[in-house]
Amino acid sequence: MQDSACREGMTEKIIRKALSEEKRVSTKTSAADLVTETDHLVEGLIISELQKRFPSHRFIAEESAAAGAKCVLTPSPTWIVDPIDGTCNFVHRFPTVAVSIGFAVNQELEFGVIYHCTEERLYTGRRGRGAFCNGQRLRVSGETDISKALVLTEIGPKRDPATLKLFLSNMERLLHAKAHGVRVIGSSTLALCHLASGAADAYYQFGLHCWDLAAATVIIREAGGIVMDTSGGPLDLMSCRVVAAGTREMATLIAQALQTINYGRDDEK
Amino acid sequence: MQDSACREGMTEKIIRKALSEEKRVSTKTSAADLVTETDHLVEGLIISELQKRFPSHRFIAEESAAAGAKCVLTPSPTWIVDPIDGTCNFVHRFPTVAVSIGFAVNQELEFGVIYHCTEERLYTGRRGRGAFCNGQRLRVSGETDISKALVLTEIGPKRDPATLKLFLSNMERLLHAKAHGVRVIGSSTLALCHLASGAADAYYQFGLHCWDLAAATVIIREAGGIVMDTSGGPLDLMSCRVVAAGTREMATLIAQALQTINYGRDDEK
Repeated sequence: MQDSACREGMTEKIIRKALSEEKRVSTKTSAADLVTETDHLVEGLIISELQKRFPSHRFIAEESAAAGAKCVLTPSPTWIVDPIDGTCNFVHRFPTVAVSIGFAVNQELEFGVIYHCTEERLYTGRRGRGAFCNGQRLRVSGETDISKALVLTEIGPKRDPATLKLFLSNMERLLHAKAHGVRVIGSSTLALCHLASGAADAYYQFGLHCWDLAAATVIIREAGGIVMDTSGGPLDLMSCRVVAAGTREMATLIAQALQTINYGRDDEK
Repeated sequence: MQDSACREGMTEKIIRKALSEEKRVSTKTSAADLVTETDHLVEGLIISELQKRFPSHRFIAEESAAAGAKCVLTPSPTWIVDPIDGTCNFVHRFPTVAVSIGFAVNQELEFGVIYHCTEERLYTGRRGRGAFCNGQRLRVSGETDISKALVLTEIGPKRDPATLKLFLSNMERLLHAKAHGVRVIGSSTLALCHLASGAADAYYQFGLHCWDLAAATVIIREAGGIVMDTSGGPLDLMSCRVVAAGTREMATLIAQALQTINYGRDDEK
């Protein structure tokens, strides 16, 4: 974890500097799915540093995947990297952006590190060893009642009218169930960190990717929470959909309330 | 401003301590419209401190209004106070809460102070003297194109099906106009501060109150931005509705896209 923190120091400098500059932006699938030079720079830096130390390890990373690299999780030790989660926020200098690095062996998530760049918060989780934010132990909320819940979600990259209708309809269902509130902060990873810290009771999303989920899943589970498929079954890291909550009761209620939005699979793109 | 910062130091301690404790919560108009002991405590502290120094001044404040005090802005010097903006966040320990204090004379807003309690950010604005965050000058975004905009809004306290439909339909209209993103962070005041700092391009809301708007309006205007009515006319602080943006073009486009949600007026409750 010390090593990771050290590497984050370099990525942090790059991201903070870039936050103060005009950005050259290109789009991936839609106007909302943005990528910047800094995404590429940070991803390259993280992978090259890790490759020096662990030359036999594999990588799944957001910008490499966008460039055509396959997202297949084999039993080999694999780093799963999102160089800037919250790229749309980043483009606007909206200060909710994070670097997320997860690590899996034998297709099992072993640890995760998420760094909230502008607030200097380092979230870490290691299987069987707990989850922490800047050294402070994380613990999820014990809430089981939707009508007392703060729920987090993200809009997702697809913006065609049918997908938007489903997104809004899901939000409506939770508000009809009298959730205290629904928040959309623009970073799946940091929303999941809020869940791990007990600051929210549930999170759901369609259209997020394995690099949004890998590190956060370990952190949430080690904070006592549940991460599962929107069908109510076990999490499938490649399925582009998730429900997470502090309790299984809450996760199940949220999953039951949702209509599915089909984003395909990360390992079939 | 120094004095305000000093008083904020006291309120900050109370709010930070309360964030680490279980809260006794009651509701105002709906399950989403919450109030805690800390709201009352902080409001009482702010008003009593100000009254000692300025015994002839008037006050408009959130919890006093909820208890039946009239919200009428007269020409007298008037402090407009929201002790905890983002009470629902506060109840969940979601770290996006602020204290907001605005000041008006002759029904004109003169200065505003907003303190983001957990991130230690003090936003200030004084008419004709600029707007700042922790001493750094604020400047709004110059964006005029909705399809390049990050837009902020809040759900508002009314949660009946018809109001929710309108809220979601407004969000849909902006997403159809290909806004980069819509964010809902749970604090009108801090959303407006993001706008003032250029981290977002527009903000709109139905159902916010004069204490959510007073301080932020000065800060946004002094950062070069526009705060106006959702009809496109001048801001009416008591009308429970607002559009704000970095440019008049953007504010007008957003206002034209919205359907009105009627929340009545603060000065007729």
